[in-house]
Amino acid sequence: MRVGHVTLRRDNICTGVTAILGCDDPWMHNLPAATFVLNGNGEMTGLAYLNDMGLLESPILLTNTLNVPRVADATISWILGRHPQVGLDEDVPIPVVAECDDSTLNDIRGRHVSSEHVLTAIEQSHSGPVDEGDVGAGTGMIAYQLKGGIGTASRRLPSGHHLGALVLTNMGLREELMVLGIPVGRALEDPLIERKTQGSLIIVLACDAPLSAVQLSRLARRGALGLARTGAISHHGSGDIVLAFSTANAIHRGQEPGPALRIADRHLDPLYQGAVESTEEAILNSILRAHTTVGRDGNTATALSIDRLIDLLAAHRAKSP
Amino acid sequence: MRVGHVTLRRDNICTGVTAILGCDDPWMHNLPAATFVLNGNGEMTGLAYLNDMGLLESPILLTNTLNVPRVADATISWILGRHPQVGLDEDVPIPVVAECDDSTLNDIRGRHVSSEHVLTAIEQSHSGPVDEGDVGAGTGMIAYQLKGGIGTASRRLPSGHHLGALVLTNMGLREELMVLGIPVGRALEDPLIERKTQGSLIIVLACDAPLSAVQLSRLARRGALGLARTGAISHHGSGDIVLAFSTANAIHRGQEPGPALRIADRHLDPLYQGAVESTEEAILNSILRAHTTVGRDGNTATALSIDRLIDLLAAHRAKSP
Amino acid sequence: MRVGHVTLRRDNICTGVTAILGCDDPWMHNLPAATFVLNGNGEMTGLAYLNDMGLLESPILLTNTLNVPRVADATISWILGRHPQVGLDEDVPIPVVAECDDSTLNDIRGRHVSSEHVLTAIEQSHSGPVDEGDVGAGTGMIAYQLKGGIGTASRRLPSGHHLGALVLTNMGLREELMVLGIPVGRALEDPLIERKTQGSLIIVLACDAPLSAVQLSRLARRGALGLARTGAISHHGSGDIVLAFSTANAIHRGQEPGPALRIADRHLDPLYQGAVESTEEAILNSILRAHTTVGRDGNTATALSIDRLIDLLAAHRAKSP
Amino acid sequence: MRVGHVTLRRDNICTGVTAILGCDDPWMHNLPAATFVLNGNGEMTGLAYLNDMGLLESPILLTNTLNVPRVADATISWILGRHPQVGLDEDVPIPVVAECDDSTLNDIRGRHVSSEHVLTAIEQSHSGPVDEGDVGAGTGMIAYQLKGGIGTASRRLPSGHHLGALVLTNMGLREELMVLGIPVGRALEDPLIERKTQGSLIIVLACDAPLSAVQLSRLARRGALGLARTGAISHHGSGDIVLAFSTANAIHRGQEPGPALRIADRHLDPLYQGAVESTEEAILNSILRAHTTVGRDGNTATALSIDRLIDLLAAHRAKSP
Repeated sequence: MRVGHVTLRRDNICTGVTAILGCDDPWMHNLPAATFVLNGNGEMTGLAYLNDMGLLESPILLTNTLNVPRVADATISWILGRHPQVGLDEDVPIPVVAECDDSTLNDIRGRHVSSEHVLTAIEQSHSGPVDEGDVGAGTGMIAYQLKGGIGTASRRLPSGHHLGALVLTNMGLREELMVLGIPVGRALEDPLIERKTQGSLIIVLACDAPLSAVQLSRLARRGALGLARTGAISHHGSGDIVLAFSTANAIHRGQEPGPALRIADRHLDPLYQGAVESTEEAILNSILRAHTTVGRDGNTATALSIDRLIDLLAAHRAKSP
Repeated sequence: MRVGHVTLRRDNICTGVTAILGCDDPWMHNLPAATFVLNGNGEMTGLAYLNDMGLLESPILLTNTLNVPRVADATISWILGRHPQVGLDEDVPIPVVAECDDSTLNDIRGRHVSSEHVLTAIEQSHSGPVDEGDVGAGTGMIAYQLKGGIGTASRRLPSGHHLGALVLTNMGLREELMVLGIPVGRALEDPLIERKTQGSLIIVLACDAPLSAVQLSRLARRGALGLARTGAISHHGSGDIVLAFSTANAIHRGQEPGPALRIADRHLDPLYQGAVESTEEAILNSILRAHTTVGRDGNTATALSIDRLIDLLAAHRAKSP
Repeated sequence: MRVGHVTLRRDNICTGVTAILGCDDPWMHNLPAATFVLNGNGEMTGLAYLNDMGLLESPILLTNTLNVPRVADATISWILGRHPQVGLDEDVPIPVVAECDDSTLNDIRGRHVSSEHVLTAIEQSHSGPVDEGDVGAGTGMIAYQLKGGIGTASRRLPSGHHLGALVLTNMGLREELMVLGIPVGRALEDPLIERKTQGSLIIVLACDAPLSAVQLSRLARRGALGLARTGAISHHGSGDIVLAFSTANAIHRGQEPGPALRIADRHLDPLYQGAVESTEEAILNSILRAHTTVGRDGNTATALSIDRLIDLLAAHRAKSP
Repeated sequence: MRVGHVTLRRDNICTGVTAILGCDDPWMHNLPAATFVLNGNGEMTGLAYLNDMGLLESPILLTNTLNVPRVADATISWILGRHPQVGLDEDVPIPVVAECDDSTLNDIRGRHVSSEHVLTAIEQSHSGPVDEGDVGAGTGMIAYQLKGGIGTASRRLPSGHHLGALVLTNMGLREELMVLGIPVGRALEDPLIERKTQGSLIIVLACDAPLSAVQLSRLARRGALGLARTGAISHHGSGDIVLAFSTANAIHRGQEPGPALRIADRHLDPLYQGAVESTEEAILNSILRAHTTVGRDGNTATALSIDRLIDLLAAHRAKSP
């Protein structure tokens, strides 16, 4: 899995784009995939294809809501550039682009993420540690009325398989935030950023265990359970969408697929647990790694530092009977 | 909403049945409804009808897995008894029966819930306070490897509407149990009941706000978020199914439906919050109201008392840094 | 695939049960499966399991609507009888029973299909030619206001794989019936049987090509296209449900699944074509193989013989400009 | 309902865009809506929103596959232009754009449909008769290896309500084409256009009866039945997607919704019949109204004229025994 960010910060522009590639050439090497829509007030393009083919044939791009089409167009350009026969005597791609609404901090009407930004995010994507917080698509996002954005976490499972979560957080009210079950959000007394609209949450789960599309569909739902542990109720206005894919059992375009490795359903629980925990942790990371951000028209999203969080947890325990 | 229980306890029989009626005559007064399958390793009969008509035309019965058909048959008998034209010149009912597997404590192969038990549970159902814990369908259920069963909770919303949850809990490992975010289950050192199979969870959400079937479908998903707050990851072997219905805007069989009240989507959040919180609370109640139960072959599910829980929470806080 | 029928005909009893087994022991050898609900005014038990596990672990039973629970109970008994550890230290089964409403010809309130009938249908099921028309679950069914019931058809595909359809027909108005696109139903002037309620249609598609659950889900939808070719519009009151399964890549309970054969999506079209054509043909066979039936209270469903159909087709062509 | 086309024909460019508006300002007046994916090898943006909110808040745009993002971006621009507070203190739109692949006749890589074209299609959309065949998004489409494109048909129901279908046809093999059940396609001996990839089909169903989102979901599935009557099997490579909406019971943004008119489920059949018939007729119209088109690199899709079709039908009948 490779991740790349492009971050845009100047004047009223506070946004960006994040590219996630399950493999180097998703168009040629399709990965088993599935989605879950916890609340559909948002967008992930390519849903019909993902759900019905059970395959991911595109990079996954994250950005702001109004920039989805331009980012999708650029993703098409990237595939066309590498595959000159696409649209001539080969099939045509349907890009996967998901979004949150960063309009409180960003001039979202301007649709400032350009084709070049997208190509850069894809081309510079790499494996290894992922920048978190107010970067890439997370630049202008607000989680629990604190600065949020990109977060990641992963687990190595007893079976030797790996599972990782990458989230784009932009949801929730501050009073809802729970950390380890403690209602941290209610203890925060800083000035509160007002948002005119409710945000969203995108969760991407990747694993290298050989899950089928049906198994991935079930895995995707566990993302919702991880979200719940941080206090969210999934507001009406939120587009809370999970995409899960496996890097095993790729389908190579134009080739006959060989036999697929299978994992017995009864061995899925460690993956489910990993999905719940990684999502929870990635959401917290998206907040704890973010910096206070002054965006559009001076709107300010305050960061919650790790030190501050530790103090809040300690204070809560001291007060408890 | 009316609830009735029949509890069976003798020898290796440790099971029962619970009836939930959204109105006095569900066959004549159909209520808007929807379901959500968080994990489908379980059964709720009537799913095709519920999802595609968006209506509940049957009482809801809860029982053990292998008793589902006999309970469904008795439910049909109940409707036939009250409606002599059904199956002659009227349509025929499809009952809604959901289940958990109580085989650790109960001789599930015996299918001991009889037609009479079902009729009693339906006929004796009543509004007002609901017995919780090891009663009705909850008699033989085990939650987080503690004694579980039936739990309820409700909220009065700022709008004046009400929302209630009734759960049948039979899921989870003890080490997963969280209360208020505190990993209470890991602190318990009592002998642990082993179960050969994973359990399930049924959540019934009822409200009197005028939600459409599509809105109820979204409400149903919030049950999963409430579950997550108690620590569950929704195991592979679990049948975690939510049914949500509204008592508003009933469709009266054979009559032209009048206009339906509507609630704007942007007013749904208090209902979502209520669904999350009521589910969480009802799950905890299902455990805290249950009594230690010695079932089949001496298998014993230990209750977690409120006092014990308070001690565990206090001890955890004392140990926290 | 094995099929067995038990037919009940005496007095006002005009019903039966049909058993379909994808393999000798569905409980031990689970087959990839999926469903499609074209119209949900009907019942197929086990839907949550079928859809979410993508597996069939039960025989498939067809019967009348009100007999579904008793047939499901008997199916459980059959599995319990063969597997003494089920419900003790093994998981418990969720039977798959689907239905149509035969109340016009049958005393459906009587629920005359007994446990013994079910066990007989299962035990006497066999591979090879299947009795069609007014047999088994089809005994009391009415299709396009003609006598319908059980029909089958199959295709041998260029790849060497096989695909078969078994249908239970009980839907439609006579005026809707089309054969080869010709509105045959409108040309029939016999006395018309009135039914008080609308019927349903169950389609079971079986293949030996190695389709995954996601591919089977897509295959299942093709059943609806075959239905459409016979003129049906899928009435509101109809429960039009398709179940598709593959006999390849069985999962053996308790064993680690070996690699799964895969078929490239681009090779699916012959299977889709086979599903459309087999369904259409099976529906016509269900009518053409049925005999005029005098059922409950003298209600009579007239058969459409092949000779009569040939005459009608010829007459239509003669009249065409 | 308003429809507008922009048609692009020069050199290797043979494409276009079609706009469908359920009302003058879809952003302010949201209409009940639902979708059905018969085969998901295609794209309709906004699926999560449409399905989960049950509302259409955007114009519906049809175009070629690779132009979807640019058309979606222009649709956003159109909404932003009319609503200056969107993205500042109002929510942000998710456009609905669906596609077929016209790459056989069109330089699809060029993405020649520009923002201006989209704005023109929307602004010039009007009620009344709709141009059909090789216009708008249909310009470069091929149905049953004949020239296809845009088709429409409608029904006035006994209740006084209206239902209309607009289709964009680009699917099928010539040998599959059936008209009135007669295999017309097999009788055609003209040179056959080869396409490298399989096409798709978009069906838009609109009615003025007060259907709820759940009822529209069921209506949408009837589009598949209409398609089947023309011979299609819904190929693997096809994106066969139906969107159904009602112009009744609009939700006005920011206002409290008044009571909703309801139609009893048992009155739905005429709407279902209308959906099946209108879809079938619209598909045939899309072919019969199209002109032979020489597109990219001289690739030629031949029209099937009404006269030719009448001859083929007559010849078939003459040959029939």
